[in-house]
Amino acid sequence: MRINGRHTRSIWLEHDGWSVGIIDQTRLPHAFATLRLTTCAEAAHAIRSMQTRGAPLIGAVAAYGLCLALRQDASDESMERACAELAATRPTAINLQWALDEVIAAMRNRPRGERVEAAYARAAEICDEDVAICQAIGRHGLRLIEDIAAKKGGKPVNVLTHCNAGWLATVDWGTATAPLYMAHDAGIPLHVWTDETRPRSQGALTAWELGQHGVPHTYIPDNTGGHLMQHGLVDLVIVGTDRVTANGDVCNKIGTYLKALAARDNGVPFYVALPSPTLDFTVSDGVAEIPIEERAADEVLTVSGRAANGGIATVAVVPEGSAAANFGFDVTPARLVSGLITERGILPATREGLERAFPERVSAAKLRVGAAS
Amino acid sequence: MRINGRHTRSIWLEHDGWSVGIIDQTRLPHAFATLRLTTCAEAAHAIRSMQTRGAPLIGAVAAYGLCLALRQDASDESMERACAELAATRPTAINLQWALDEVIAAMRNRPRGERVEAAYARAAEICDEDVAICQAIGRHGLRLIEDIAAKKGGKPVNVLTHCNAGWLATVDWGTATAPLYMAHDAGIPLHVWTDETRPRSQGALTAWELGQHGVPHTYIPDNTGGHLMQHGLVDLVIVGTDRVTANGDVCNKIGTYLKALAARDNGVPFYVALPSPTLDFTVSDGVAEIPIEERAADEVLTVSGRAANGGIATVAVVPEGSAAANFGFDVTPARLVSGLITERGILPATREGLERAFPERVSAAKLRVGAAS
Repeated sequence: MRINGRHTRSIWLEHDGWSVGIIDQTRLPHAFATLRLTTCAEAAHAIRSMQTRGAPLIGAVAAYGLCLALRQDASDESMERACAELAATRPTAINLQWALDEVIAAMRNRPRGERVEAAYARAAEICDEDVAICQAIGRHGLRLIEDIAAKKGGKPVNVLTHCNAGWLATVDWGTATAPLYMAHDAGIPLHVWTDETRPRSQGALTAWELGQHGVPHTYIPDNTGGHLMQHGLVDLVIVGTDRVTANGDVCNKIGTYLKALAARDNGVPFYVALPSPTLDFTVSDGVAEIPIEERAADEVLTVSGRAANGGIATVAVVPEGSAAANFGFDVTPARLVSGLITERGILPATREGLERAFPERVSAAKLRVGAAS
Repeated sequence: MRINGRHTRSIWLEHDGWSVGIIDQTRLPHAFATLRLTTCAEAAHAIRSMQTRGAPLIGAVAAYGLCLALRQDASDESMERACAELAATRPTAINLQWALDEVIAAMRNRPRGERVEAAYARAAEICDEDVAICQAIGRHGLRLIEDIAAKKGGKPVNVLTHCNAGWLATVDWGTATAPLYMAHDAGIPLHVWTDETRPRSQGALTAWELGQHGVPHTYIPDNTGGHLMQHGLVDLVIVGTDRVTANGDVCNKIGTYLKALAARDNGVPFYVALPSPTLDFTVSDGVAEIPIEERAADEVLTVSGRAANGGIATVAVVPEGSAAANFGFDVTPARLVSGLITERGILPATREGLERAFPERVSAAKLRVGAAS
């Protein structure tokens, strides 16, 4: 997508052919800066500290992190150590483990001398595949927006989104945002409500992305969506996801569930943009089975932003001595989901719908559960 | 309630016998400072700028604001001007208009020379009545907590609250917090989840209050409540309200509706603490009829808090050029409300329940609607 008018991906191989460039998302939306990752430890730190974030992008960074480890030491031990280090960075997004498994599979039965090259090749493919998946999600989701636009007779289609499932969370296009960018580019009048998404306010990333691309949008506190829906100000909700279970439960940034409840209560369609690597056929009941990351209380106790002097400053919002809790995700039960926008079309959020569309993922999950037990 | 161990009300008559002291709530929870109001314009500014806030407390400040206007000029014209100025400060809370009506009624048929004294007397009564109402709400709400505590066998009762319906929002005790303070004082193990309540983060005021009184609590982003309820971590929700309609719809701080939906979805009881001056029998359908205040975008675009140097600083959280919307309140339909905790007991959120408990308010509303039509 565009940054200051120039096409950019969120991850790239540097000119040296081996180190990896990413955008430092902890400085957005206030400053645009890039980082160069040269070791697996740096990649793990970038994921853990959320310099890089978003389920699909985390997968891509982890894949390259494994490449960086192999480049230094292509032994089985090094590979296992790197996988363990990278897998432990964020417990909720399933793409991370998926990407590591993909890179390992690409090296299977290859001599040590060929491992690095094979790993880099698979990491690059994962990135390209992610772009293709997001484009396909965009094309399928675009139809939803076109249908609403046809009924609104020229009035803007109002879409609400939560967190950042934008191109910053993927390699390009984004998941939830791909249909938005395509609709905007197709000339459909569109307006996006971007939930702030405390504690880390990733809605500011979404607002920044949309602003860079010229998409009209309004930033709202997380409390606002229900009121907007009660008053007919939301035509469609599209969110991303960090993991979807075999029966269609959707794990996504904390607060998504509340918006799904409001959408249901007001008859607003609630869609989830789902790249297939986010599918986890090894779990069924999302609320009971998906581990929910608890992050540091500091993210809740403080807020960072642009200070009057133009620098980034952090202020404490909570009285000294008060504790804070910081759950990163929640689970929206499948019953609240109108549909899953995947690269293979819009599916019902049901086991049947998912298994029919992604039979090869079901087989892979069976193998994996078998290996673990 | 207590501040640094000393009993304090949130509004008081100064020693001069006519000027009015309040706590500057824009500086809390980072600094405790008081303000002295000497004119109606100062009272109006304090309400508009949220130096003073909370539906019941706004009523008390407005009553004294009218007293300050009459002290300068006790004419009918002055009285009408002051009422118009004060009523325009915040459009949603009904207590404000109620308190002005009460002071005017107290002056009815009195000679000009007695008006000031009568107005001050009624304003003082309004404050004392508010304290008595909150105490009664506390006693009734306490029973709910006692019942849950009895089932939990010594484990803490987890109560979630939104915004600040604490003693800072009233003259003393608070509405939603009165049962909490009474339960804590009675030795019931209690833990309170305090929603942050962006954009103004009044949850920090609740955390500060609870901390001053020694009540265990945890500050959470507004996105968190649904996840907590899904995992059995909330036994009871109690919130305050700015206006309750004749059929039991509840207008309260934006985001309340989302928590009510989550409570319903998870079988968690959802109660609203309601002092009777917050009842508005002149409206029925809350979503359709209650005007929702839209405040300045700046409150959303920025966050204020304690800077590293100990002062209060403001940072911008949204990219430059992005717009923001700031709806102050939403409406929770009566169907989502388990009960209304009033000074006359816990009532069903229905027209029948409210009319039976507050027949004199029904008559007053009929008079008022008649006068307006």
